[in-house]
Amino acid sequence: MKLAPREYSVALPPWIAEAVADVPEVIEDVAGRMRLVHALADRNWREGNGGPFAALVAESDSGRVVSVGVNVVLASGVSSAHAEVTALALAQRTVGDWDLGGAARPDHELVVNWRPCVQCYGAVLWSGVRRLVVAGSGPELEELTGFDEGPMREDWAEQLRARGILVLDGVLRDEALATFAAYRQAVAAGGITVYNARRG
Amino acid sequence: MKLAPREYSVALPPWIAEAVADVPEVIEDVAGRMRLVHALADRNWREGNGGPFAALVAESDSGRVVSVGVNVVLASGVSSAHAEVTALALAQRTVGDWDLGGAARPDHELVVNWRPCVQCYGAVLWSGVRRLVVAGSGPELEELTGFDEGPMREDWAEQLRARGILVLDGVLRDEALATFAAYRQAVAAGGITVYNARRG
Repeated sequence: MKLAPREYSVALPPWIAEAVADVPEVIEDVAGRMRLVHALADRNWREGNGGPFAALVAESDSGRVVSVGVNVVLASGVSSAHAEVTALALAQRTVGDWDLGGAARPDHELVVNWRPCVQCYGAVLWSGVRRLVVAGSGPELEELTGFDEGPMREDWAEQLRARGILVLDGVLRDEALATFAAYRQAVAAGGITVYNARRG
Repeated sequence: MKLAPREYSVALPPWIAEAVADVPEVIEDVAGRMRLVHALADRNWREGNGGPFAALVAESDSGRVVSVGVNVVLASGVSSAHAEVTALALAQRTVGDWDLGGAARPDHELVVNWRPCVQCYGAVLWSGVRRLVVAGSGPELEELTGFDEGPMREDWAEQLRARGILVLDGVLRDEALATFAAYRQAVAAGGITVYNARRG
């Protein structure tokens, strides 16, 4: 058996560098960090990279942004390349450790524009972040965008807390819904792939 | 804000090519496919790449192996680089589509040496595979290895079936437990990192 390829890579789209060029490295308030996530999520689907989802990893206390991520499933050809997985991996590469919660490291948080899907919920658990910040967590995402988020446990937030990960919910919620609504309008107008697998 | 790095990659370890060199590309019986997974899982922790976990993606009917994956969290520095995520991404790159279940494609399956953790459970959902083959699914993995697999729903298998993904459980179960037991012995003897995050 020959193995080819033996490696895969996931890259941020080229427009990201320009989109964040004028954004300061430190965003002191969590609402400001979420505002950046919303802006990237909205631009991501308009650029054709994937769904209307973005994330960033920041140091909770200082507000220093360590990485950003967007959903690049379509661009990368890798179904796991959701915004959260991408942002967490880039943060781990930046820090030089697969565990963002390692000893003597400042607390890190993942900021996302809605409650993660079941895959990314698991990715949060293993990443070492100490806080998950979301704009919302209800069924609105699935209703508006048509994406399946997978079977989540009712006690998802408690399970995070039991593993030392706090949840901050409801940060700029209306702005998240506005992005999803715009995406839905575009899907209804045609030409957008809602990429739940097993389309065949 | 400057973004660096803007890309991450996950590679199979160098020893894999040699380990599969004499394995045929087509393994007609599912037990044979699981036997390969067990061999890779056992070697993976001994090589120091990560935990005792491996996976492969195959065409269910023909038995053609499309990709293999091992847990390379330690080697890659990326906490999501579990065996399942790695095998699925490499299969998607090989096929040239993020959806292994796309139209006019043969059914694909993921073969893993135990029930996936919650992250990889989600990754299975979005990958397009039509079958999940596992050696076992009980608490033995967590008891033997000390890994936290995360909060799974009781109806995890039904939720897969509801999305068109069959589950085949119990394939070479004893051999899986033997690998975990050997790993546990090595951990007890010292020098092995059980890499649940938040070790700090």
